[in-house]
Amino acid sequence: MGIDIHHTHTVEVGYDEFCGALAARDLQPLWKIARQLMPEVPLPTTQAWLWKWDDVLPLAKRAGELITLERGGDRRVLALANPGLKGLPFTSTTLWGALQYLGPHESAPAHRHTPSAIRFVLTGSGVYTTVNGDACDMEPGDLILTPIWNWHDHNNRSDEPMVWFDGLDLPLLTTLESIFFENHPDQLQPVEGNNLSEQGFAGVGLREMGASSPVAHSPLLRYRRGETERTLEALHRARGGALVSLEYVNPLTGGPAVSTFACEMHRLYPGTRTPTKRKTGSSVYVVFQGSGRSVINGVRFDWGPGDIFVTPSWAGVDHEAYERADLFAISDRPVLQALHLYREEELTEGQEISGTFVPLKGATSAADSSRNEH
Amino acid sequence: MGIDIHHTHTVEVGYDEFCGALAARDLQPLWKIARQLMPEVPLPTTQAWLWKWDDVLPLAKRAGELITLERGGDRRVLALANPGLKGLPFTSTTLWGALQYLGPHESAPAHRHTPSAIRFVLTGSGVYTTVNGDACDMEPGDLILTPIWNWHDHNNRSDEPMVWFDGLDLPLLTTLESIFFENHPDQLQPVEGNNLSEQGFAGVGLREMGASSPVAHSPLLRYRRGETERTLEALHRARGGALVSLEYVNPLTGGPAVSTFACEMHRLYPGTRTPTKRKTGSSVYVVFQGSGRSVINGVRFDWGPGDIFVTPSWAGVDHEAYERADLFAISDRPVLQALHLYREEELTEGQEISGTFVPLKGATSAADSSRNEH
Amino acid sequence: MGIDIHHTHTVEVGYDEFCGALAARDLQPLWKIARQLMPEVPLPTTQAWLWKWDDVLPLAKRAGELITLERGGDRRVLALANPGLKGLPFTSTTLWGALQYLGPHESAPAHRHTPSAIRFVLTGSGVYTTVNGDACDMEPGDLILTPIWNWHDHNNRSDEPMVWFDGLDLPLLTTLESIFFENHPDQLQPVEGNNLSEQGFAGVGLREMGASSPVAHSPLLRYRRGETERTLEALHRARGGALVSLEYVNPLTGGPAVSTFACEMHRLYPGTRTPTKRKTGSSVYVVFQGSGRSVINGVRFDWGPGDIFVTPSWAGVDHEAYERADLFAISDRPVLQALHLYREEELTEGQEISGTFVPLKGATSAADSSRNEH
Amino acid sequence: MGIDIHHTHTVEVGYDEFCGALAARDLQPLWKIARQLMPEVPLPTTQAWLWKWDDVLPLAKRAGELITLERGGDRRVLALANPGLKGLPFTSTTLWGALQYLGPHESAPAHRHTPSAIRFVLTGSGVYTTVNGDACDMEPGDLILTPIWNWHDHNNRSDEPMVWFDGLDLPLLTTLESIFFENHPDQLQPVEGNNLSEQGFAGVGLREMGASSPVAHSPLLRYRRGETERTLEALHRARGGALVSLEYVNPLTGGPAVSTFACEMHRLYPGTRTPTKRKTGSSVYVVFQGSGRSVINGVRFDWGPGDIFVTPSWAGVDHEAYERADLFAISDRPVLQALHLYREEELTEGQEISGTFVPLKGATSAADSSRNEH
Repeated sequence: MGIDIHHTHTVEVGYDEFCGALAARDLQPLWKIARQLMPEVPLPTTQAWLWKWDDVLPLAKRAGELITLERGGDRRVLALANPGLKGLPFTSTTLWGALQYLGPHESAPAHRHTPSAIRFVLTGSGVYTTVNGDACDMEPGDLILTPIWNWHDHNNRSDEPMVWFDGLDLPLLTTLESIFFENHPDQLQPVEGNNLSEQGFAGVGLREMGASSPVAHSPLLRYRRGETERTLEALHRARGGALVSLEYVNPLTGGPAVSTFACEMHRLYPGTRTPTKRKTGSSVYVVFQGSGRSVINGVRFDWGPGDIFVTPSWAGVDHEAYERADLFAISDRPVLQALHLYREEELTEGQEISGTFVPLKGATSAADSSRNEH
Repeated sequence: MGIDIHHTHTVEVGYDEFCGALAARDLQPLWKIARQLMPEVPLPTTQAWLWKWDDVLPLAKRAGELITLERGGDRRVLALANPGLKGLPFTSTTLWGALQYLGPHESAPAHRHTPSAIRFVLTGSGVYTTVNGDACDMEPGDLILTPIWNWHDHNNRSDEPMVWFDGLDLPLLTTLESIFFENHPDQLQPVEGNNLSEQGFAGVGLREMGASSPVAHSPLLRYRRGETERTLEALHRARGGALVSLEYVNPLTGGPAVSTFACEMHRLYPGTRTPTKRKTGSSVYVVFQGSGRSVINGVRFDWGPGDIFVTPSWAGVDHEAYERADLFAISDRPVLQALHLYREEELTEGQEISGTFVPLKGATSAADSSRNEH
Repeated sequence: MGIDIHHTHTVEVGYDEFCGALAARDLQPLWKIARQLMPEVPLPTTQAWLWKWDDVLPLAKRAGELITLERGGDRRVLALANPGLKGLPFTSTTLWGALQYLGPHESAPAHRHTPSAIRFVLTGSGVYTTVNGDACDMEPGDLILTPIWNWHDHNNRSDEPMVWFDGLDLPLLTTLESIFFENHPDQLQPVEGNNLSEQGFAGVGLREMGASSPVAHSPLLRYRRGETERTLEALHRARGGALVSLEYVNPLTGGPAVSTFACEMHRLYPGTRTPTKRKTGSSVYVVFQGSGRSVINGVRFDWGPGDIFVTPSWAGVDHEAYERADLFAISDRPVLQALHLYREEELTEGQEISGTFVPLKGATSAADSSRNEH
Repeated sequence: MGIDIHHTHTVEVGYDEFCGALAARDLQPLWKIARQLMPEVPLPTTQAWLWKWDDVLPLAKRAGELITLERGGDRRVLALANPGLKGLPFTSTTLWGALQYLGPHESAPAHRHTPSAIRFVLTGSGVYTTVNGDACDMEPGDLILTPIWNWHDHNNRSDEPMVWFDGLDLPLLTTLESIFFENHPDQLQPVEGNNLSEQGFAGVGLREMGASSPVAHSPLLRYRRGETERTLEALHRARGGALVSLEYVNPLTGGPAVSTFACEMHRLYPGTRTPTKRKTGSSVYVVFQGSGRSVINGVRFDWGPGDIFVTPSWAGVDHEAYERADLFAISDRPVLQALHLYREEELTEGQEISGTFVPLKGATSAADSSRNEH
């Protein structure tokens, strides 16, 4: 029995009634929405946005007093919710950025999930994250991976809180409807050793014979700040210019540290504005040190240490440092590249600055609007 | 200048005021939403749903009368809008399914876009789709690719309309903010030849020396029904059983025909219910011929020729044919596999049937609710 | 304890004595042999050569009478021994070409080895080769794989002998010192079915869902002449010209049918001489039907059905058919490509013919020399 | 016109005459040579062998006096010629090992070739090798790549000679008939900078954004001894045991530094004999420091700084250090792995020592035989 086009009659309805009939049958006419669905260039819902350290930190501290870390409230995390995403707690359509606050002598219990996470340490000391039994020390400027389906818990042995940036692919995995989560049977997982993942990776271009990588992520779980520093300096000596950029990669394959987003570090030198570029996909930038400004689609975003901002797909972006600045960033580029969707271009002319970023909500409040002016 | 945690004070606010302050600063507390964001197994917003041919066809015919194909209304397409997706014209969070109706002697003008599309022909004859100059004939049961950024237009030379199923990765590319679109300078692009893409692929396991594939999709643009038929029969002879399944692949690489979703054909033989399986990611099934029923998470969906249904991520799914049936399907599996997120499992026991699908909207209307009962 | 350059004295010997001292210590001075070791272009030891069917066939028949197929003399094979290779039974430095003769109702016992073999059937019928339990029928023009470490035996159920061409990577594996061999515990291995490997590969661009390939070779073990014929005709219709060429590939990956050498079919149409090309690596050509001539480095080689010839690395080669001709060929190209050593070029001018091939040994014998003149 | 088996008659000759007829037609009967061609396990022609530093160094020094480096005698190289290879200047069937001696203030002129070379520095200082414009400094323990078709020249600015180990794939490329060679138009190529290749590779797991690798080899051309030392120490701390082994890899892909052979460093700690292993393919070991012995197929080879030895395919091999020892090695493993021919196994029992290595030629001479006894 095959498809028959002749056994039903056309319904003799007018256009309005016709549209109602479509809606009643869960159908939508493409011709009314085609231009919005298929714009000539990406029309992101992600908005360019910036969160100030001085706004977020007091709230993170307060959360440290108000919220305890126990089962049911595992992590003290403030998600950076992009105003363009209609109330979703996502920083862009693919990326989750957040600040996590771990108080003195606190532990965040062990669990695992299919979303991959990275932790970029902003402040504090004496903390370790255990990843599948490997207790990885965390110090400012370090990058720690807690990749797909790896058990992880966080432990602060010091008298000071730690604050780090959380980067996850959670929004993408929500769209892909692929999120699994599991609590560890114990509050904390057993520790097999300290910084084990680093043992095989002491020299550039050298690897233990017979070493092989997990398929979905780097075997190296801690990328120390010192290595980053050394690489940035070498690149600057070699290349010069206003900007050097590096990517954190799987040392056994050269691929991204995690499969679903890139981790990058950009060092800006003062005095020069970088060329305006645009690319498909979004990025979340975390200012680790220094200050400067970025222009995103003509709007100026000033930033200093601890500030975080997001650039949407195909936005024109340039940067200028007021003093030497390090911007850690995550980006969905590896996904776009895997699907042959990545495009980038450099504009022949720099963009004009047509305004300065003021958060929409803040515009109605003197107290709020002031937060973008220091 | 680095990050300083000590220069601001904790804000001394109560919990409710604290939550308000978070919202005002575009922050969201993870602890309130963690279980919803990170469920133990996927919690899809995509709903299992079914669109009946007898409901959609009369409206498609009526659209043929009401809507003309001119610039600004390029395609006469009825999108299958999943009720779980809050008004978005998407069939699942990653996949677009639609019916396209091309009237006698009509042409749909030439354009290109980064979303990849496939066309699976349901009824009609004498139509061709030109893809980058290659006029590909379309007959029922054929699969035609119009992949990423390939110029394409559709042309009906016959006195009968054609209806085909459109499958696109449009929802995924919307999330990835990677949609580019361009109209061709001419209404129709020039034709360089007919069915050119098939010329190099006449024999299994043989290819022209020196042939190489585009990176993002198959060089073969038309997969004829006859080849599918021949393969299904050979597989059934070899494997037996209630179900044989094949995938349309790039003959030069063995990869999926397009990068972003799989195209599959499933032939069901009557008399046996297939085991219940679940997998991450969604699928859209198009009944090409035959009738039967599928059970999705315990709900029974009866289907016949031309019906289309969608299965959400991690749903338990089994099928049973009343007569031999061919189900064409698209699935986001290649994306999940590329990102190491694909999981599948077969349940040890078949699922019980707890209800029969009735469209929600239809429940309020006798006329509508009747449409699922023939 | 490290390397010390100062604790020994230079030996005060003259040049001749010095050279003798080198030889006595298994050392060779590069400066005497550099030009020979590192020529400006490849300096093959493989010689262009041709074996006439009319010379080889009578001897193969006679071997059928003199040699029985029993353990210890498993295969009745005449190897084509290139005169440039100093008595080694190899057709080129990487490829083994041979004729195998299987008499009526004979069986060649089961064994396996790491050298991969292909069998291209020249004449006969009613034979099957069992490969890991799969009894693959063999008819003229079929290509049968017996890949690396697969059990295989050959069985002739007919009243006629069969002659096929054997292609192996045996010379390469000899250099790589990687040959393993094992006799099957039984004279013949058990048969699980007939032509099983073909069951999943009935349609172009279609594969069974979930199918995966062995890593080292194609899962398809028999490539029928009919498929080759169909592909050659389609290519000729599409491309025109004096030559169409196809490669036998793994239908699940697009890679070569076996890892270590390519299998190709070239159809020549009479009336045009092909452009002169050269490439790194050697090829062995088997004339399946038709007649013509090839010019190799200026020397003319005339050929007809059943003749076999070899082209050395970087030789200028062109072909011309007197009547439509099919040349099956094997080549070490996949190895060179994997190691980034493959080069090819087309000469801007056709090469002049400076002589006609006469086997060296034949030159001393009127009976022999005559064999290249019919 | 197809193949005809009936138009010729069997030649009525006896077995001896038959064999003569085969030879006259460049045919060889497989049945006489099958066991030798297809042994049950690899039957290498490469012999286990060892060259003593104290034997080779005086001759290298003498060569420095006798041989000048000018066009026509480009390199002062003593090749380690394996006695099993019938006079060929090859260390194994796939690998070339040699000592190169560059006198004070000498330069070896610029050329390029398809064979890839590595230089492992044994003694000396103040030398640089320019590779495609990049002047790479050479110090003891450094590994320098001069890969496929890269221009290179060697320059000694010091008052001392330098001696290094040359490793090449020359024997393999001879078999593959793929050697191209070209002299640079100038005696020395222009230098664009010093140690440029190292600039992008300062930190483990980090790479310059957008960096991509040449297809055939590592972009890193100098692997400093310091990095090797650091990695060996970290591995030893992490793993313990009698042996730690590392491989020099392409930092952008994790693949071997050159495509055609592996470069490895093995550090042995005294007091323990390693398990006996065998693998397909050959290795050439260079003792950089320390002393010990290796047992190869039951024969004991004692070694000290500067000694070089070769292990054939499938030989049982174990090592024991008398003092901490570093063995640099090259191996054809990447080729075997690419072709799916690599096998390795560890024997359950250690091998017995049945003899001590004495060079065959040396056995006839008291002076020579003594050289293996200190």
